[in-house]
Amino acid sequence: MKLLSFRCKGKTLFGPKVKREEAVWDVLAIAEASGVTDFPQTITEGIAFGMDFVEKIRRLVEQAGKDENLDRFKYAFTAIEWLAPIPRTPKNVLCVGKNYADHAAEMGAEAPPEKMMIFTKSPTAIAADEQDLPIHEDVTNSLDYEGELAVVISKKGRNIPKQLAYDYIFGYTIANDITARDVQVAHKQFFLGKSLDGSCPMGPYIVTKNEIPDAHNLSIVTKVNDDVRQNGNTASMIFKIDELIAEISRYVTLEPGDVILTGTPAGVGKGMTPPMYLKKGDRVKVSIEGIGTLVNTFV
Amino acid sequence: MKLLSFRCKGKTLFGPKVKREEAVWDVLAIAEASGVTDFPQTITEGIAFGMDFVEKIRRLVEQAGKDENLDRFKYAFTAIEWLAPIPRTPKNVLCVGKNYADHAAEMGAEAPPEKMMIFTKSPTAIAADEQDLPIHEDVTNSLDYEGELAVVISKKGRNIPKQLAYDYIFGYTIANDITARDVQVAHKQFFLGKSLDGSCPMGPYIVTKNEIPDAHNLSIVTKVNDDVRQNGNTASMIFKIDELIAEISRYVTLEPGDVILTGTPAGVGKGMTPPMYLKKGDRVKVSIEGIGTLVNTFV
Repeated sequence: MKLLSFRCKGKTLFGPKVKREEAVWDVLAIAEASGVTDFPQTITEGIAFGMDFVEKIRRLVEQAGKDENLDRFKYAFTAIEWLAPIPRTPKNVLCVGKNYADHAAEMGAEAPPEKMMIFTKSPTAIAADEQDLPIHEDVTNSLDYEGELAVVISKKGRNIPKQLAYDYIFGYTIANDITARDVQVAHKQFFLGKSLDGSCPMGPYIVTKNEIPDAHNLSIVTKVNDDVRQNGNTASMIFKIDELIAEISRYVTLEPGDVILTGTPAGVGKGMTPPMYLKKGDRVKVSIEGIGTLVNTFV
Repeated sequence: MKLLSFRCKGKTLFGPKVKREEAVWDVLAIAEASGVTDFPQTITEGIAFGMDFVEKIRRLVEQAGKDENLDRFKYAFTAIEWLAPIPRTPKNVLCVGKNYADHAAEMGAEAPPEKMMIFTKSPTAIAADEQDLPIHEDVTNSLDYEGELAVVISKKGRNIPKQLAYDYIFGYTIANDITARDVQVAHKQFFLGKSLDGSCPMGPYIVTKNEIPDAHNLSIVTKVNDDVRQNGNTASMIFKIDELIAEISRYVTLEPGDVILTGTPAGVGKGMTPPMYLKKGDRVKVSIEGIGTLVNTFV
């Protein structure tokens, strides 16, 4: 199931993409019309129920499909304002540094990190697919892209064993971990350079985990103005998703709606000779096999 | 005004300390009894109104003080479960590294940092005054204390000029930035080692800014089992509070209820010869002049 969040008629809503249509089901409206009173009112609330939530949505949509007046439960994509699938994470977005060996090398590391490097991005940085993003030329002259697979956490947990990590995953989406390189370097800790407004676009959908048979065999491609810059595969991650969840949760309590960005392959602007940073008008597309394409233009 | 958050009868409440009594006003109950319908229902919601919120509370309490039955609006401290004054920050708690020259030196830095080093702690780490805290011996053998002045932000803002920073402050509280030194060092980025459950106790109160004439002239003392370990003064901060707010908000949007920990003076366990880390049974007290004392025992 492809789930998205959106705004329409002044309300923040969510629902699954309508199959073979450029439209979304308003699942809250279906639940209300069906007299279902215990349906989660926000996507984060729902995600906490894991695959039961997905099954509940599937049943509501099936029911709506039989309705004579089913169009009242759908919105065309042209009629909605897209949001990031998780419009606001419960804590900062969790990120892994240098999790692809080729990227670690291009960033000047002599060897890939032995211990995973976890930093965060402010949830105020979250933005949507197709949202225009600020270039922030007042504070940086080296804004850079990093296409990444994002994992959405469904259940609260600490000390999650690697073997059980999959149970804590709700699904996957695409993120661009936009980074002000000069700020990142000057301030040593990455947080500030990673947290500019609009520097964490995510989307367009969460694809639920049942539709991704192997999250470690997905092509990931980032283009800037149709120039291929990153062309990797999630198979190359140094620390795999189950290790990330196990190691992070050794220290930090994970919660429903938390998002983990799993690192970026080689090909960022800083790694080029000479470096090529983002400029006004650039259109960046991050595509991950089986999930879709996240597109943003810098203004 | 000294504001605290607490749980009582299954509800999360907040209110000001009753003057000359070890008790708190249940300001939501006073508002309800007075027929005030637009009173903020959570402390974070209220904080967004800044000093107007403080004035509203003052008036409600004044009114309750004239009530024949005023005891119904008070809870003795013995009858409540204390929470951190901001029980859950909207994003990770913001922290400044090495903001006292003597502490930077004891941590092995050759010179104080030229640029401020901002890292974060997960809001899942927030704990209350007098709460027993886990020693986490399964993941660290070097848990350390850092007594700090904490600034509570009242208004949303980005690019806040230094000259206007004071307008964005709601008040001050005390925090202990508990740190797993081995994790902090091994993972390079500080986030994991700073985010263990219970590693961000704060409290007991927020003292509103009008009661602190000069936040840069406060004695700050940390004791472990009545042994004085840190004995500093907020006058010694390298980056002052207005600079912290200006610089952080150049990059990150600040929001009502955000908390900035302003750094710790010399005297942490890691700086001693040999290092003296926390152990089971240790009782740590952080006292800041004009604010109070934050006390936690490790179990």
